[in-house]
Amino acid sequence: MIASESETPVKLIDWDANYAGRTRRMSSSAIRELLKLTAQPDVISFAGGLPAPEMFPLREFQEACDYVLRNEGHKALQYGATEGYTPLKEYLVDRMRKYGVPADVDNILLTNGSQQALDLIGKVFVDGETLVCTERPTYLGALQAWNAYEANYCTVPLDDQGILVDELEAVIQRSSRIRFVYVLPNFHNPAGVSMSESRRHKLVEIVLKYDLFVVEDDPYGELRFEGQDIVPIVTLAKERTIYLSTFSKTLAPGIRLGWIVAPQKVISRLVQAKQGADLHTSTFVQMVANDICQRGFLRQHVKRIRATYLDRRNAMLDAMAEFFPEEVKWTYPQGGLFLWVTTPPKIDTVDLFKVAVAEKVAYVPGSSFYPDDDGEGRRHMRLNFSYSNPDLIVEGIRRLGVALKKAMMDK
Amino acid sequence: MIASESETPVKLIDWDANYAGRTRRMSSSAIRELLKLTAQPDVISFAGGLPAPEMFPLREFQEACDYVLRNEGHKALQYGATEGYTPLKEYLVDRMRKYGVPADVDNILLTNGSQQALDLIGKVFVDGETLVCTERPTYLGALQAWNAYEANYCTVPLDDQGILVDELEAVIQRSSRIRFVYVLPNFHNPAGVSMSESRRHKLVEIVLKYDLFVVEDDPYGELRFEGQDIVPIVTLAKERTIYLSTFSKTLAPGIRLGWIVAPQKVISRLVQAKQGADLHTSTFVQMVANDICQRGFLRQHVKRIRATYLDRRNAMLDAMAEFFPEEVKWTYPQGGLFLWVTTPPKIDTVDLFKVAVAEKVAYVPGSSFYPDDDGEGRRHMRLNFSYSNPDLIVEGIRRLGVALKKAMMDK
Repeated sequence: MIASESETPVKLIDWDANYAGRTRRMSSSAIRELLKLTAQPDVISFAGGLPAPEMFPLREFQEACDYVLRNEGHKALQYGATEGYTPLKEYLVDRMRKYGVPADVDNILLTNGSQQALDLIGKVFVDGETLVCTERPTYLGALQAWNAYEANYCTVPLDDQGILVDELEAVIQRSSRIRFVYVLPNFHNPAGVSMSESRRHKLVEIVLKYDLFVVEDDPYGELRFEGQDIVPIVTLAKERTIYLSTFSKTLAPGIRLGWIVAPQKVISRLVQAKQGADLHTSTFVQMVANDICQRGFLRQHVKRIRATYLDRRNAMLDAMAEFFPEEVKWTYPQGGLFLWVTTPPKIDTVDLFKVAVAEKVAYVPGSSFYPDDDGEGRRHMRLNFSYSNPDLIVEGIRRLGVALKKAMMDK
Repeated sequence: MIASESETPVKLIDWDANYAGRTRRMSSSAIRELLKLTAQPDVISFAGGLPAPEMFPLREFQEACDYVLRNEGHKALQYGATEGYTPLKEYLVDRMRKYGVPADVDNILLTNGSQQALDLIGKVFVDGETLVCTERPTYLGALQAWNAYEANYCTVPLDDQGILVDELEAVIQRSSRIRFVYVLPNFHNPAGVSMSESRRHKLVEIVLKYDLFVVEDDPYGELRFEGQDIVPIVTLAKERTIYLSTFSKTLAPGIRLGWIVAPQKVISRLVQAKQGADLHTSTFVQMVANDICQRGFLRQHVKRIRATYLDRRNAMLDAMAEFFPEEVKWTYPQGGLFLWVTTPPKIDTVDLFKVAVAEKVAYVPGSSFYPDDDGEGRRHMRLNFSYSNPDLIVEGIRRLGVALKKAMMDK
């Protein structure tokens, strides 16, 4: 082999000349580079979207792995159907119905977390000729998924009741190229707000009127710790909604398991896309999750998660009231993992980031959550309250308060 | 909610008008429909590409799951890095080097099986303006992955020494739009042949001369049961080869775990693509596979798989010699899972399929393995010998012999 290697002249290839056009939109986000600064262990990070690891049901996973491998190991380790493991789909049908979402087994596709659901939707529906209509701000991961399919965006602002439906209608009237409206109605990432029931009805009215469809991304819907559940959009318009959810926030994200609910015709297309993308989601992981779920464990477990996150949210809200300058505002989430901070005009949250990291605290600057960085995002930051315990949250918010005050004095 | 539902007028959306252009190439393969016929339990199927389930190391999986959840459960169930779990990458670096493949940790990306590697390569390199050069026949899954990125193909025949390199050069000279050459040098799927060392050298010479790169797909390389290992193409030209492999055929396919070896610059691009596609491959699955591998289990285990598949290949070769009409020819694989049958001109293997299923035996008609179905594939079929035990193989080949003889008499 040494001889073989020396025979080959070293001639480097120009990889840059070989990438497909769509990769121009796939550059690594500035935020990923920023976040590398936060890897030091003494930094308190509110930047990630990590669930509390101490809530992971380790014992239940151990029991389920043992059961599945002992009783159905040959099936669990073999190739499986692209659509997903049927008993898990049956469980999800039942769970979705209890939650108000009408679904049958043929309406469900298992995915590698919600992120793959976004990718498959991109592959099947997004191209350079049409527009995706998103909230402003919107989920960073959806932008990453759809940029790879050369998405163009139009955006509609949201307030504490969710997307501004009148503005949505105005935006739709200005463009005939919109293919779908993408919303995160419950405990919005990054904004932390929920769409009111009346806005949901109005949204459905609009998509019917203009013959569009909705992608309803609902990773946190079950993590409501205050107030009443609000009817899912898919319940109001099941024939024109693609609904996404995930086990990442209720069981664990490390198993990469999510699902799509959609009309059977759409599922067939998404299945074709998934077949080319990775054949199917791990049979083993699906069977383990199914075993945990079928034991009826999830319902009680989710209650414990809600109680834990409520404590943490309260710790963050109280600490912000104590430590943040008066000019700083924030949203009040009734569930989920995030809240959204608005700084006074003179504070740029990208510039502030370095000051904050010097104070040993981190967040995600708001600009990451806008399809076009027109500066609006630089007055915002996203804070996560699920990952750190209340003591760390209080200390982290104190540090962030110091950074904010320093930045305000500098101006 | 009942009230809400009745408020919404039922107005169906025309989904067909909403799909992205690329979906025109994503139609479900005819073969998938055919294979549904084979779901009856009394059909002996040589159609799938399934490993022998009785070889799955169930006890090792149980021990590894237990160890990982007991000792590093919080890490295993949490989000992880897109690039993959570092200890597993380190293990793969070591394993790849022993196999002759020069690689460092930064040259490796973990994927959801090789199929996701093909998809990510499609996302980063394939578009409607350039050509992918494949062998004829080639792996069905690669076509499915790349069709979704609107791939165009040019093809080069292979013989029992692999791709015809002189024809490859002629094809390249006729087109300036070729971006890369895709080959399966070891125990080709579907053809069962391996590329000779001299052809590998010549292939590298050609890609250097015409400034192309190679995608070397090597899922079966370790499953050689006869003859000597042949130097991997990536060893001869590591700066212009993207090498793919998988745990599907050595550990188990149900965990969906494969990897890419490529220049660091290419890995960075593929990581961006994977981040949008699914964030990362299951941390839990990677840590379990790593635990099994780090115990040194794989080396002995692969020897047992080789011995098992050798028996099965021999059973199939012997039975074909006994039961097939004289005019039928087949390849002689020195490893892997498949062999390739050539029928006389008067037999169409798509038509024969129904006769075979009536005799309770199934295979994949060759036409599935050609980017353009010009009829050539209809004189071939792919047979899998890894899944069924020798007794079933003999009985299945006997049945297929009956079907072949019936079809020949009908003409």
